[in-house]
Amino acid sequence: MSHALAEAVLQGSRRALARVLTLIENQTQGADEALATLFPHTGKAWLIGVTGSPGTGKSTLVTALAKAFRGRGRTVAILAVDPTSPFTGGAILGDRIRMNDLSGDSGVFIRSMATRGNLGGLSATARDATRALDAAGFDILLIETVGAGQSEVEIARLAYTTLVVEVPGLGDEVQAFKAGILEIADVLVVNKADRPGADNTVRALRTMLDLGHPNIRATMVMHHGDLLEVAPVSGQIDDALWLPPIVETVASESRGLDALVNAIENHREFLQKAKRREALELRQIEGELYNRLRDLLLQRTLKSLPHDMIVDMLHEIAERRLTPQVAVQSIIAKTNQNHA
Amino acid sequence: MSHALAEAVLQGSRRALARVLTLIENQTQGADEALATLFPHTGKAWLIGVTGSPGTGKSTLVTALAKAFRGRGRTVAILAVDPTSPFTGGAILGDRIRMNDLSGDSGVFIRSMATRGNLGGLSATARDATRALDAAGFDILLIETVGAGQSEVEIARLAYTTLVVEVPGLGDEVQAFKAGILEIADVLVVNKADRPGADNTVRALRTMLDLGHPNIRATMVMHHGDLLEVAPVSGQIDDALWLPPIVETVASESRGLDALVNAIENHREFLQKAKRREALELRQIEGELYNRLRDLLLQRTLKSLPHDMIVDMLHEIAERRLTPQVAVQSIIAKTNQNHA
Repeated sequence: MSHALAEAVLQGSRRALARVLTLIENQTQGADEALATLFPHTGKAWLIGVTGSPGTGKSTLVTALAKAFRGRGRTVAILAVDPTSPFTGGAILGDRIRMNDLSGDSGVFIRSMATRGNLGGLSATARDATRALDAAGFDILLIETVGAGQSEVEIARLAYTTLVVEVPGLGDEVQAFKAGILEIADVLVVNKADRPGADNTVRALRTMLDLGHPNIRATMVMHHGDLLEVAPVSGQIDDALWLPPIVETVASESRGLDALVNAIENHREFLQKAKRREALELRQIEGELYNRLRDLLLQRTLKSLPHDMIVDMLHEIAERRLTPQVAVQSIIAKTNQNHA
Repeated sequence: MSHALAEAVLQGSRRALARVLTLIENQTQGADEALATLFPHTGKAWLIGVTGSPGTGKSTLVTALAKAFRGRGRTVAILAVDPTSPFTGGAILGDRIRMNDLSGDSGVFIRSMATRGNLGGLSATARDATRALDAAGFDILLIETVGAGQSEVEIARLAYTTLVVEVPGLGDEVQAFKAGILEIADVLVVNKADRPGADNTVRALRTMLDLGHPNIRATMVMHHGDLLEVAPVSGQIDDALWLPPIVETVASESRGLDALVNAIENHREFLQKAKRREALELRQIEGELYNRLRDLLLQRTLKSLPHDMIVDMLHEIAERRLTPQVAVQSIIAKTNQNHA
């Protein structure tokens, strides 16, 4: 049945696509069957991840970006992933607003997934969802995440091109750049660029990039623990290296979107040279395989043990009579016995 | 040798403590040995997690909070965990500023860990670090994380009392509350409360809490996808339920810290009734055990397989000749064969 559903997705049925995505989201058995049918038809969409702190206007930007790609004749799917469990219904709310904006265009498909779970399982589910959308034939796939923490970053990294969205204001504080998300940006977007301080934010980002880029050595001038100055000792910049451009946008007025689409296209061209995309994808698949394996191995091990054993151990640990390290070792020893 | 080091930690040596924390951070073998000695002496410190978006002034708040606890005669350890890899050296920078502020007080110990890795491994390392600090005899342990994403939240949840820090400004946008971190707050802090809009932020947080608290049913009044109104149908509030208080602070001027310490002490009293702390700890230990098991099982499985097998599979997946789901199944089948 899942196979027939997958065939319908390949024929262009949006209803079938929605149903397959629900199978994937709920991690039901049919999902694997559907994916087996869809998988050979993937690899054609360009996957774009969008991440950034709350309040940066990511959803609006993604909507504007979808429109800009539509203007260039591309079909677009939006996958909004919320790795936390929002009690506000925010994800659905955001979808509705967007629906109004993009409704009536059959070249756009929007889906949000508000899931919870460990990081490995979550990103595997998100990746399966991108595969269904890819197989359904969309040219552009926008993967939007709600926050900017590590889990969101991992999900954004399911993509080939990762956008990191910032806004003026936060940019003045070194704090805003501590999260390490700059490191994963292929394109930096300063949204709400009509706000005061946009120039400062762009300058601060530029400094951070100069400081942080592996190919530019920089000298930090410190005084009593404060960063006074960054003096880039810029040497040769490797030709094979991508330097993330900084693009200013006002997404709510669709300003700067053309430049952003161009920046994405440039990055796409860069990745398509010298098999860079293939190398990137191989690393992504390796991470995915390990995550899936990790989860499945745990499931199998727990199933093979008497439940009481785990409960007893938890209490022994809580009473400080057993360390977690020793507990794990004895579980593994027990599993080996069972196998032998 | 690690055992002797651990004994020195129990005797109060700060140098030994620093060395044990380094063993834990680097996940060297000696760490497990040291922890085996330290573990029976843990369970006395009160663990407080502090999380919130970049720019909320978390570090300043944690420093002010440490001073406030010192003022009540408690010894304090600060563990600053950065789950991402900051290329700014932000963690170290933050430490230096703090060192100036708290230096010369032997009742305070500060340590930052800028680690990377999968979430399970990271939070296990952080938990081990809290155990070393706990065994070293500190009354209060402040666990500070850099971001506000899921990984940071998980680390903050190593604690008994979790503070979520917000600032005026972001509070006006529904976006700021989408990340679901409110759900994990035991105490909500509105820092930089001297800024304009603090009242709005407090009101918005209050509304979100009313809307989201499991014990208060609320009606959302929607209109064209916009949230117009929240009408709380507030019924009976369970006595056994903690309603997170909202505390306003100006950490840079040490304002509001007394109220914050009181809120934390209230939460501590709440958790110490009806074995709530024990129940919380048992859940935390369960999560930790599964994470450790997951990682160790993966390591063992990968070690038991020929490396070429994995590499071949990765290429087959990249060429869409094999789905990741089937790949994982055949790895597990192969492992079983090896065991048999």
